[in-house]
Amino acid sequence: MRIALDAMGTDNPPGPEVEGAVLASLNSDVEVILVGDEDLLKEKLEAFPKKGNVSIRHAPEAITPLEPPVIAVRKKKHSSMHVAMRMVKEGEAQAFISAGNTGAIMVATRVILGSIPGVARPALSQTFPTLQGRTVVLDLGANVDCTARHLCEFAEMGVAYSRHALGVENPRIALLNIGEENVKGGAIAREAYRTLSKASHLNFIGNIEPRPLCEGKADVVVCDGFIGNLFLKTSEAVAYFMGKMVREHFESSNMSKIGAVLARKALKQIKHKMDPNEYSGAPLLGVDGTVIVLHGASTVRGIENAIYGTQHALENHLLEHIRENIQTLKENGGVNGSAQDALSADSMAGLGLQSETEDPPEAAVFSSAESSNLLQ
Amino acid sequence: MRIALDAMGTDNPPGPEVEGAVLASLNSDVEVILVGDEDLLKEKLEAFPKKGNVSIRHAPEAITPLEPPVIAVRKKKHSSMHVAMRMVKEGEAQAFISAGNTGAIMVATRVILGSIPGVARPALSQTFPTLQGRTVVLDLGANVDCTARHLCEFAEMGVAYSRHALGVENPRIALLNIGEENVKGGAIAREAYRTLSKASHLNFIGNIEPRPLCEGKADVVVCDGFIGNLFLKTSEAVAYFMGKMVREHFESSNMSKIGAVLARKALKQIKHKMDPNEYSGAPLLGVDGTVIVLHGASTVRGIENAIYGTQHALENHLLEHIRENIQTLKENGGVNGSAQDALSADSMAGLGLQSETEDPPEAAVFSSAESSNLLQ
Repeated sequence: MRIALDAMGTDNPPGPEVEGAVLASLNSDVEVILVGDEDLLKEKLEAFPKKGNVSIRHAPEAITPLEPPVIAVRKKKHSSMHVAMRMVKEGEAQAFISAGNTGAIMVATRVILGSIPGVARPALSQTFPTLQGRTVVLDLGANVDCTARHLCEFAEMGVAYSRHALGVENPRIALLNIGEENVKGGAIAREAYRTLSKASHLNFIGNIEPRPLCEGKADVVVCDGFIGNLFLKTSEAVAYFMGKMVREHFESSNMSKIGAVLARKALKQIKHKMDPNEYSGAPLLGVDGTVIVLHGASTVRGIENAIYGTQHALENHLLEHIRENIQTLKENGGVNGSAQDALSADSMAGLGLQSETEDPPEAAVFSSAESSNLLQ
Repeated sequence: MRIALDAMGTDNPPGPEVEGAVLASLNSDVEVILVGDEDLLKEKLEAFPKKGNVSIRHAPEAITPLEPPVIAVRKKKHSSMHVAMRMVKEGEAQAFISAGNTGAIMVATRVILGSIPGVARPALSQTFPTLQGRTVVLDLGANVDCTARHLCEFAEMGVAYSRHALGVENPRIALLNIGEENVKGGAIAREAYRTLSKASHLNFIGNIEPRPLCEGKADVVVCDGFIGNLFLKTSEAVAYFMGKMVREHFESSNMSKIGAVLARKALKQIKHKMDPNEYSGAPLLGVDGTVIVLHGASTVRGIENAIYGTQHALENHLLEHIRENIQTLKENGGVNGSAQDALSADSMAGLGLQSETEDPPEAAVFSSAESSNLLQ
C-alpha cells in the first residue's frame, strides 16, 4: 500500500510531513512517498535513525497557500501537488494526501484525476465531534450552489464513507436545514428530501437542525457547500468564543490557581476532541482516486493520523464502494437532471473556476490556522 | 408611556408576564397593560401587594405555540395577541410585547400594523454576545429568500436599532458570508455588497465571517433569514455542546468536587451572558409600530428586561429613526427593484404565508425552550 504525500503542503513544510510519514510508516505496513524538494527532504529524513518505509520523489516546484488556484495549477505543472497526484493517476500510488492550498487541490484533482463516472460534483467532507461520536458532514465548501441531484450524490458518497471508512453499519442520513418539516428550505432542499425519502436502500431520517446534529442524531449530514461552510465556520467561531469565555472566567475567579489549572486541563481535553489533527483528514469524495485534504496548520500528529485513516479507507475499498453507490443512484433514477455535467462549464462555475481570476471558495478549515487555534 | 403586553404568550402563561410587568413597572415609570383572560390575570395580579402601574385588558382567546399561524390569526380575532396589537394600532399603547407563537405575531403584525412605508420585509433581529459586547444580527428567520434591496433595508433598520436602542454611535455594518472577499456568496449578496459600499452615510465594513463576528468586529450583521436562522441555531447548538463537554469533563475529573463547583459557577456565568432573558428581546424591525418578540420559555426576568428595553427604544424614538433611514435609502435609490411589494403576493410567499396550510418559518429561538436550555 503506497501513499503519495505532498511534502510541501503545510504552513511550515516539510517538517510535519517528513516526521508524520516516518512515524506512520514505522507503526504500520504502509509505504509513504514524500513528494517535494529532494535536497530538503533528504536532509530532513536523514535526521531520523529509523526511517520506516519512506522514500522521496523530487518535485522542483511548490504551490503556496495564497496562490490563485487556477493559475497556480496551470503554471506549476511540476509542483509537489502535481507530481504526487499524477503518481495516483498512473497507479504508482493508491492515495494522495496534501495539506496544501485547498482550492489548488480541487482544481488539480479535476484536471488530473477527474470524477468517478456519474459524479457531477466531488464534495469536501469532514467528521464533526458530537455527544455520541462523530458525524460526517458534506459538502463543506467545494460547491456553493447545488442541485437536488448533487445533494443525493453527496448522500451516497457520505454513506460509503461512513460505512467503509468509519465502520457505521447502517448510517442515518439527514439534510441540514433550519427545521425538521419537509417544507423547510428552498425548492432544491425539498426535491432532495423527496428523492432521499423514496430511496429504500438508504436510511434517510429527514431534515436535521444543528442541535440534534451536535447530539449525534445522524451519521451523515448533507448540505450545499455554502451552508456547510457556514456551519463549519460558525461551529469553529462559537467553540473559540466559548473556550475563551471559560478560560477568562477561571483566570479571573477567586480560586484562580486551582481554577486555571483545571480549566486548562478541561479545555485541553475538549480541544483534543475537536482537534482535526486527531482525525484522519477531509476526503474529497467523488474524485476518481483517494484524495485526502488537510489544513495548512496540520501537525506531525495530523499527518500521521491522515496516513492511518487513508490506509483504513484503502483497506476497506472506499473508492469502489462510492462507485457502487453512485451506480445505484444512477440506476434508481429518481432525481431529474443528468449527472453528466462533471466537466461542463456549469460545474466549473460551481467550483468558482469560471475564470482565471476567480478562486474556488476555500474551505475555512484548510485555508488558515484558525481551526487549530480553537480554544487556544 | 404605555406598553401592551400579551399576557398569554409564554409557555406557562400568565405567571412570568404578570410578575415581570409588576417588577418593571415598580422599577420604572412605564405603564403596562396585561392583555388576556381577565379572571386569571386578576387572580395573579392580586397576589402582589404592590402592583405598580399595571392594568388588565380582557381578551377571551389565546393563540397557542403550535397553532398554524395564518389560521390562528384569522380565526382567533379576540386573542390576547390581536387585542394587544390593536391597542398599538389605535394609539392606546406605544408598544407591543409578546412571548407567543412567533409566526402568528408576524402574521398579526402584517394584518394589523403593516410595514413602515418603503419597507418590503420586516426582519427579526437579536443581539448576540461577542468578546467585545453585543452585535445585532438580522434577519433571523422572518424571510427565507431576500433580494439585495431587502438586505439593504435590513442594514438601515439594524443601524437605527444599534444607534438608538443600543447606543452605538457609528455602527459598523457587515454582511454575513463565508469569506471576506466581495466575490463570495451568490449574486444577491454581491449586489447588496456593491450598494452598501456606495452608501456614504453607512459605515459598511464588508463581508464578515462567523469568527470575527464572535470577536465583535461589527455592530450590525445582515443576512437573509435562512442564513441568519442557521447561524442562530448552530451557535446555540455548539454552545450547548461545549457546555455539556466542559461540565462532563469536570464531573469526571479526579478533583471532581472542586472542579464541579467551579465548572458550575463558570457555566452559570457564561449562561448568564448568553441568556436571552438578560436582554431586551427581539424587535421585529420594519413594522409600523414597536413590536418586541420573546421566546416562549421567557422568564419573569425576560419579561422585565423586555419592558425596560422597549421603554428605552421608545424614549430614543427608534421607530421614527427607522422611518428616516428607510426614507434615506429610498432617496438614494441605489438598489434596483421597488420597495412597494410590502403587501404583494411575493412578499407573503417570503414569509411562507402563501396558503393557509403553510406556516412562516419559525425562528428557533422563539419556537421552543431550546435557547433557554443553553448550557443547562
